Amino acid sequence: ENEEKKTETDTNRCKGEHQSSIEKSDYEILYRKPPSKIRLEWDSRPTKIYVIKKWHDDTATKSLAELSKWLMDERSITVYADKDALKDLPQLSNIEELEDASHHIDLILCLGGDGTVLHACSLFEENVPPIVAFNFGSMGFLTPFEFKRYKEDLNSVLEGQCYAKIRLRLECSVVDESGNTTQTHQVFNEVVLDRGSSPYLSSLNCYCDDRMITNVQADGVIVATATGSTAYSLSAGGSLIHPQLPAMLFTPICPHSLSFRPVVMPASVTLKIEVPSDSSASAFVSFDGRHRTELSKGMSVSIKVSNWPVPTVVRTMEIGDWFHSLAVHLNWNQRVQQKSK
Amino acid sequence: ENEEKKTETDTNRCKGEHQSSIEKSDYEILYRKPPSKIRLEWDSRPTKIYVIKKWHDDTATKSLAELSKWLMDERSITVYADKDALKDLPQLSNIEELEDASHHIDLILCLGGDGTVLHACSLFEENVPPIVAFNFGSMGFLTPFEFKRYKEDLNSVLEGQCYAKIRLRLECSVVDESGNTTQTHQVFNEVVLDRGSSPYLSSLNCYCDDRMITNVQADGVIVATATGSTAYSLSAGGSLIHPQLPAMLFTPICPHSLSFRPVVMPASVTLKIEVPSDSSASAFVSFDGRHRTELSKGMSVSIKVSNWPVPTVVRTMEIGDWFHSLAVHLNWNQRVQQKSK
Amino acid sequence: ENEEKKTETDTNRCKGEHQSSIEKSDYEILYRKPPSKIRLEWDSRPTKIYVIKKWHDDTATKSLAELSKWLMDERSITVYADKDALKDLPQLSNIEELEDASHHIDLILCLGGDGTVLHACSLFEENVPPIVAFNFGSMGFLTPFEFKRYKEDLNSVLEGQCYAKIRLRLECSVVDESGNTTQTHQVFNEVVLDRGSSPYLSSLNCYCDDRMITNVQADGVIVATATGSTAYSLSAGGSLIHPQLPAMLFTPICPHSLSFRPVVMPASVTLKIEVPSDSSASAFVSFDGRHRTELSKGMSVSIKVSNWPVPTVVRTMEIGDWFHSLAVHLNWNQRVQQKSK
Amino acid sequence: ENEEKKTETDTNRCKGEHQSSIEKSDYEILYRKPPSKIRLEWDSRPTKIYVIKKWHDDTATKSLAELSKWLMDERSITVYADKDALKDLPQLSNIEELEDASHHIDLILCLGGDGTVLHACSLFEENVPPIVAFNFGSMGFLTPFEFKRYKEDLNSVLEGQCYAKIRLRLECSVVDESGNTTQTHQVFNEVVLDRGSSPYLSSLNCYCDDRMITNVQADGVIVATATGSTAYSLSAGGSLIHPQLPAMLFTPICPHSLSFRPVVMPASVTLKIEVPSDSSASAFVSFDGRHRTELSKGMSVSIKVSNWPVPTVVRTMEIGDWFHSLAVHLNWNQRVQQKSK
Repeated sequence: ENEEKKTETDTNRCKGEHQSSIEKSDYEILYRKPPSKIRLEWDSRPTKIYVIKKWHDDTATKSLAELSKWLMDERSITVYADKDALKDLPQLSNIEELEDASHHIDLILCLGGDGTVLHACSLFEENVPPIVAFNFGSMGFLTPFEFKRYKEDLNSVLEGQCYAKIRLRLECSVVDESGNTTQTHQVFNEVVLDRGSSPYLSSLNCYCDDRMITNVQADGVIVATATGSTAYSLSAGGSLIHPQLPAMLFTPICPHSLSFRPVVMPASVTLKIEVPSDSSASAFVSFDGRHRTELSKGMSVSIKVSNWPVPTVVRTMEIGDWFHSLAVHLNWNQRVQQKSK
Repeated sequence: ENEEKKTETDTNRCKGEHQSSIEKSDYEILYRKPPSKIRLEWDSRPTKIYVIKKWHDDTATKSLAELSKWLMDERSITVYADKDALKDLPQLSNIEELEDASHHIDLILCLGGDGTVLHACSLFEENVPPIVAFNFGSMGFLTPFEFKRYKEDLNSVLEGQCYAKIRLRLECSVVDESGNTTQTHQVFNEVVLDRGSSPYLSSLNCYCDDRMITNVQADGVIVATATGSTAYSLSAGGSLIHPQLPAMLFTPICPHSLSFRPVVMPASVTLKIEVPSDSSASAFVSFDGRHRTELSKGMSVSIKVSNWPVPTVVRTMEIGDWFHSLAVHLNWNQRVQQKSK
Repeated sequence: ENEEKKTETDTNRCKGEHQSSIEKSDYEILYRKPPSKIRLEWDSRPTKIYVIKKWHDDTATKSLAELSKWLMDERSITVYADKDALKDLPQLSNIEELEDASHHIDLILCLGGDGTVLHACSLFEENVPPIVAFNFGSMGFLTPFEFKRYKEDLNSVLEGQCYAKIRLRLECSVVDESGNTTQTHQVFNEVVLDRGSSPYLSSLNCYCDDRMITNVQADGVIVATATGSTAYSLSAGGSLIHPQLPAMLFTPICPHSLSFRPVVMPASVTLKIEVPSDSSASAFVSFDGRHRTELSKGMSVSIKVSNWPVPTVVRTMEIGDWFHSLAVHLNWNQRVQQKSK
Repeated sequence: ENEEKKTETDTNRCKGEHQSSIEKSDYEILYRKPPSKIRLEWDSRPTKIYVIKKWHDDTATKSLAELSKWLMDERSITVYADKDALKDLPQLSNIEELEDASHHIDLILCLGGDGTVLHACSLFEENVPPIVAFNFGSMGFLTPFEFKRYKEDLNSVLEGQCYAKIRLRLECSVVDESGNTTQTHQVFNEVVLDRGSSPYLSSLNCYCDDRMITNVQADGVIVATATGSTAYSLSAGGSLIHPQLPAMLFTPICPHSLSFRPVVMPASVTLKIEVPSDSSASAFVSFDGRHRTELSKGMSVSIKVSNWPVPTVVRTMEIGDWFHSLAVHLNWNQRVQQKSK
């Protein structure tokens, strides 16, 4: 019975005369329902929190000290920080150093800008604890919380009275000429293939689910998550993608072919980008700006949606909020109105 | 019990320490599963087929005559066509005129380009029968079948041995100053608001799920389906969107604010675009290029995913096919390689 | 002798072995010399000044009253204004109404934004008096003077102690099917051909010096001056052009062909844009947003540099100033720096 | 007297009431006259010709052999080629090897694509002999001649019966932290500053005639000639610039600020692009894709129009030809017309 149900889900019927509409199915989930809300639910009280702050920012440092003290003294939490942060907080000798980003952390608190959240994610190659991000920077796509309300907001979070948005990551594997995977990384914003110092445009073969699509002549190629659509992909001409859309963006960088526009793909595909074996130059790949690696001829990068997304705690689940935040962050209403066309 | 299940779907749990991963849920459907396949399944043999052809194209006319004859003589199908097509086919007196695009049509056959498919859809405001489109034009995003194989392919379709892709439509309602809906249309490609003959940029207030997002100063605004992403939205700078993605595109046309980039939204939202009551000019709206209507101050257009999508019969379900067809149709590999940067 | 010199200018020699460099000629003027400075030089004291102000702006109105009084009382100038401005200045009964923008005006003073300067120019189809523009708006590409220093700055201007920049206008003629010119307008920013309310893309034939170049399928076409490069052309994707460059910009609006990029042409060419006689729709033309006219099939617009440029009085002649003002007006340094690519 | 004339040229008068128009001056040369024609005029018969061909192209090699034989046997010309070309032409033992691109070459013949012309120019840091370019590649912006007519065309050239277009080069100097110039190169297409392998956006200070304009956060910056506007700058979003326009293009590559659009400057300016002394990374510079050099903090590149332009022999002087060739090379009429907007 279960088997049959599955089959029906996969191959819904679309009938002729007697059909009143497409039958309810994934159609409802995909198209009609708002992207799912995830309620943060604790099986037991969270006890271990990792705190991370913006570098070289006195306000963030001071706030982190205050916050950590409150967590330890008032909420009996064990607070972890990385070595560099600990150096800035000599007065708090009972903060633990985070030596190993393993499964024992219950929650991450970020005090900084979007870059701080990006850095926090990068420490967790697999399961990422929920992230509460306080805005201490100027870009706030990922940092919805204000520090002045931290007690109120964290009390809600610790009691499971809050929601999280799931943000996709991409799992990117470097594959060598013999087909062996040599590296795997999770990216939160984007994976970039570029030509590095080569005077030649990079020539990259693109595959989608093992089907050869096209050869791209360009400075490079970006494959971004929806989260990353507000970052480098945007500068390269990509559209802005709502983070709840199950999508990957394929954005060429300064392509030689002027009609090669950014392409938004379903998150279910596997992309492969390969340096052709007859290429005149190698290419380079980097993952959220890190782990830069040269790809010699015949090497490729395989990209698919990761098993390990990032739950970010949010103040509100409304889709329009993100759209509105674009208008604010990108100064859409800033340029002065002119009279005539 | 049902209630509880629903709650869990809506608010999945995202747990701390003991959590091994985001729990299986819509996550799987949204992100990991390929967009659903729909098998064409007939409760009874299809008996009524509507045929439509490109205007002023002799090859299409001749082919339509051959095809109709075969359907009637060999397959005992009742064939319908519109008045104009009938004039071109005087020899086939037993084709019926399609007077009313009601529920009795089982299947649509298109002989033309993408425009012919667009026209066919426009005749069915509600339930659209499955469409089999033969390519007699040069753009073939929507026309996968070749006429020379028509007997083989149609036999498969009539026996239910084929798959369809569901393509979204948008339901667009014109709302007057008093909040009354005065028109409703289904669009397959896009709804466009523009300034018409006004010398002033249009000033449009944009709402997402009733939240005011921003005021757009521009020549106009396009809200497109993924299907429409290869049409007008592309010329206005929008990205290309895979038709299986549950998305709407919001593309400003020549916006005054240079940072106002196209935005891809989940298909679950309702957008509203309004001519402000203090606007210096009215705006115009058109639906797939038709039903052009002036919007005076205070009027708006409300846009959401339609209950009446379009099932298009496909030769293959592979996602990469669409991506590859972009490369072909847009001549990505056409411009000649240059030596140096 | 004169004749010979002219010939040499036209056909400079470019010699082989014995040539030390391209011989001095127009080459120097065109490429090596900064764009010419024009000193404002009065044969006799200026006595008639036309003042113009932004609509519905109390500060501009009050300032205009103060300025006009000073000009009349202290500098014995006859001040002219248009009818609407006079209504706002009932206390100044001795301001004359400008009935006819003929040759008798010595100087124009603008109190407003760039739109006010645009409007002032539009009143003078032929010779435009020098314009001194005070910034009362937010865009200041054309309005370099601050009102608080008006006495000091105007004393300099009236004594001929200042420089002007020459800004080109384009002379645009509407030509009917029989080849007769039916209208001629001077544009300061741009001439726009668009499709108006037509659901079809406009199809326009483009000629350069009577040579057919291409057919453009687009929402329309902008031909802009360098001055106009910061206005509508910019929203349509055109580059920014320094106003001293002897150039015209041809910018397609949302062209169907994705490789159709804006083109910058020498100011010496004559462009003609024609609605083909087999076009499925007419087009519309407007001149700096005014005089909107329908172009039926076979009609065209002819565009060349005008004999009647606009001298705008400037505070400084440095080319870098314009470039810097772009950075300020377009908020180039506004968006926040992000950490990684 | 001469002095006074010069002054008047620099500071033309712009008078009020009595002025009938801007006085004739550079205005005529800049705006009204077509870009100058240069007639190729030989003081003595050209005797030394340098031939260059596309690499690894058998047709070009065979044609070069035929052409060289004709030049030597029929026209008594001494033919020079570079070492690599000589290896491909063992049968022509009397071709000289070009060891030193000094002043003795009268004419250059190119058999290849635009890249071959680019390479030929790069061999002549100062005076460039006139170039006749035969099209053996696919891009022909710089290669107007067809080989099958070579005898007829070269006879005209050798007799001085032809015209040349002057194409600007830019003189680019690398300046170190102490203000010393360490390298100088002539570029025909563009000079590019980029971030190389740095994960950070390059941060570059831009100066125009020693005035600080803005800091650019981007992948890099292109400063191109009009000739180079059809190359890399085009992929980065720059407009197409007619080669006779006295202009430089400043095109940012994927700028962080979305409003930072390409800027066209008069050829008379000097641009300086500097790696700030507090930059977090160095940058790289390359000149027509060559001489790649790292720029550490405090270093800069100074860019101005070169004293050593490139005379390219043309078949026609019409400005429209270039515009038309854009339409052909960029496939403006290739994408298929769609029915509705």
